[in-house]
Amino acid sequence: MSTVNAIAAPSATEPLVRTTIERREVGPRDVRIEISYAGICHSDIHTVRGEWGRVPYPLTVGHEIVGHVTAVGAEVTRHTIGDRVGVGCLVNSCRECENCRLGQEQYCLTGNTQTYGAVDRDGTITQGGYSTHVVVDEDFVLRVPTAIPHEAAAPLLCAGVTTYSPLAHWNAGPGTKVAVVGLGGLGHMAVKIAAAMGAEVTVLSQTLGKKDDGLRFGAGSYYATSDPATFEVLSNTFDLIVNTVSAPIDMSAYLGLLRLDGTLVSVGAPPEPLAVPVFALFGNRRSFAGSSIGGIEETQRMLDFCAERGIAPEVEVIGADAVNDAYERVLASDVRYRFVIDIDSLR
Amino acid sequence: MSTVNAIAAPSATEPLVRTTIERREVGPRDVRIEISYAGICHSDIHTVRGEWGRVPYPLTVGHEIVGHVTAVGAEVTRHTIGDRVGVGCLVNSCRECENCRLGQEQYCLTGNTQTYGAVDRDGTITQGGYSTHVVVDEDFVLRVPTAIPHEAAAPLLCAGVTTYSPLAHWNAGPGTKVAVVGLGGLGHMAVKIAAAMGAEVTVLSQTLGKKDDGLRFGAGSYYATSDPATFEVLSNTFDLIVNTVSAPIDMSAYLGLLRLDGTLVSVGAPPEPLAVPVFALFGNRRSFAGSSIGGIEETQRMLDFCAERGIAPEVEVIGADAVNDAYERVLASDVRYRFVIDIDSLR
Repeated sequence: MSTVNAIAAPSATEPLVRTTIERREVGPRDVRIEISYAGICHSDIHTVRGEWGRVPYPLTVGHEIVGHVTAVGAEVTRHTIGDRVGVGCLVNSCRECENCRLGQEQYCLTGNTQTYGAVDRDGTITQGGYSTHVVVDEDFVLRVPTAIPHEAAAPLLCAGVTTYSPLAHWNAGPGTKVAVVGLGGLGHMAVKIAAAMGAEVTVLSQTLGKKDDGLRFGAGSYYATSDPATFEVLSNTFDLIVNTVSAPIDMSAYLGLLRLDGTLVSVGAPPEPLAVPVFALFGNRRSFAGSSIGGIEETQRMLDFCAERGIAPEVEVIGADAVNDAYERVLASDVRYRFVIDIDSLR
Repeated sequence: MSTVNAIAAPSATEPLVRTTIERREVGPRDVRIEISYAGICHSDIHTVRGEWGRVPYPLTVGHEIVGHVTAVGAEVTRHTIGDRVGVGCLVNSCRECENCRLGQEQYCLTGNTQTYGAVDRDGTITQGGYSTHVVVDEDFVLRVPTAIPHEAAAPLLCAGVTTYSPLAHWNAGPGTKVAVVGLGGLGHMAVKIAAAMGAEVTVLSQTLGKKDDGLRFGAGSYYATSDPATFEVLSNTFDLIVNTVSAPIDMSAYLGLLRLDGTLVSVGAPPEPLAVPVFALFGNRRSFAGSSIGGIEETQRMLDFCAERGIAPEVEVIGADAVNDAYERVLASDVRYRFVIDIDSLR
C-alpha cells in the first residue's frame, strides 16, 4: 500500500477536503499511474451528495483521468513506463459474461467495477481520480495519443465515450441527420464527434445563448427548444437524437422530430420515469433507447478517432482548492464546457 | 354508385345493425371486390365506441377483408376478375412522401387513408369490410394465395402484418430469442410467425391458461407474468419482445428481460403514456419502440410467407347477426383467437 494525496467528500453535506488515501501495491497485471489531470463530471456531484444511492464516505471521486505510467506489474504487456494513459468509469468487470466477451464491459451482467465507490476485487472501495496516483488493471487502462492536448484529454474518458458510443452504434455519418439535446459537457462533445463522423448536426438547446459555440463545434444549425415553432419546423427530421439532458423532457415533442426508424437515445437520466406516449413511437416506427458510456476497446477507438480528427473537449483548468466552487458552477450550468483539475496542485 | 348490404354502428352507444351503404363506381384504377369474410379486430370496437376520437356515424368498420375480384377498371394491371384478394387497414396514401416512396405507406407523412372512418380522395367517408362489396384502388389490394384457407385469411390483413412487420424489421430468425406478450388475436399470430421465421419463441401471458395452445403455435416455452419469478428467471434473455397488450405494463420489469441491444416493441398502445425508467434502458443499451401495421409490399410478403409456411390464424366464424355478441366476447378475451364474419350471411 502507498499513501497518496487526494480530495475526498467526508459526507453528503460537507465540502470536499484535502486528505490522503491508500493505493494498492502494483500487482502482476497492474499499472501505476501518476495522474496529471482529472475531469469533473456531473456524476461526481450526484454521487458525493448521495443523490444516486448509498455512498461509502469518505470518498474520492473522478472518472476522467489522464496521466503517465510510473510502474507496471511483471505480467503487463500493454503499457510501459512513461506512456501517456487514461482511465475512465470502469476499472474492472467479470470478463466472462456474454457482454464482457463482446467487449461491452459497461454492460457486464454481473456488475462491473466502477472507478470510485465500488467494491474492488480485493474488498476495498475504489477511489477515483481526484488524487495524485491510481493503480489499475492494465486491461482497463487506455492509451491517450499525444496529439490530444494533455489538459483536455481527461473528459474524453467519460464525456467523450458516452457520446461517441451511441453515435457510432446508431451509425451517425454522411447522410444522417443528428440532433444533440443540450450543449453542456456531454453535448458539446456529441456535436464535435458527430460532425467529425460526417453527420449533419443540429443543436437543440433551451436558448440560443451558446449558438456561436455550437456552430463552431461543427453544428450546421441551432434551435431554441423554448420556441414551440422549433418542434413544428423540425418534425420528422432526424435519424438520431442524442439527449444529454438529465431533466425530464416532453417525450411526445422530441419523438415527433424523428423520421422513419429514428432513435432518441438518452445518455443522461432523470431519477423519475419518463412519460412516453406510445402513439408517438408508432409514427415512423420510432425508438427510445438508453446508452451507458462505452466498452474499453470502443473507448480506445474514440481516443484514436479524436486524435486523428483533432477533436478535444473545451476545458477550464482549475486547482484542487477550486473544486467546491466548480461544483456550484456546474450545477448552475456555468462552465464552458468541462472543468479539469490540475493534479499538480495536489502534490 | 351502388347500394350494398352492410352492418353499421349508428352511434357510440347502440349495437351494430344491418343496413345498406354506397360503394363508388369502379374507377380506372379501381378493383371491385365481393367480400367473403371480414375479421373482427379490437380496433373496430374501439372505433365504433368512440374511444379513439370522433367518429362519422353511421359507420361500417372492418379492415381484415378477403374476397374475389368481380370488376376492374380500364387501367388496372395487378388484378383480374376472379382473383382471390384482400384489403387491410389502408386504402390509399399520398404516394409521394419519403415514407411512401420507401413502401412504408403506413407511415405516410401526409396521413394515409384508412379503410374505414377516413375521408377518401372523393370526399366521402371510407366504409369498411362488414359489407358485401368494397371498391379499392388496385395498389392497395393484396393477392391472397389459395394455399391459405379462405375463412382464415382475413385476420392476416391486420393481425398478421402487424406482428410480421416488427418481427421482420428487428430480424427475428434462427439464433434470436423472441418473447410475445399476450396470446390474443395479435399474440397468437406473432408466435406462429416468429416460430416460422426460426426464432426461439417464449410466450409471456398473465396465466398458464393457454399454454397448450401457445406451444402448439410454435412457442418453445410459456411463462405466467403473474408469477414474479418469471422476471427473475428470464432477465437479460430476449433480443426482441413483441408486446401485443394494450393495457399498461410494468416497463421496468419487461425491459429487464432484454439482453444486449434488445428491443421491446409495442404494437398495441394504451391511451395514457407509459412510465419508462430510463435507467432500465441504460442496462444492455435497450430500446423501446413502436410499430404500426406494415407497408403494402410487406403485407404481400407476409401473405406469401404464410402461404408457403402453412400459417393461418385460428378463427371462429360467425354470422352477421352474432357481431354484437362477438364484440362482448372480444372484450372479455373470450375468443380463440379471432372472430371472422361470414359475409354470405349479409347477402
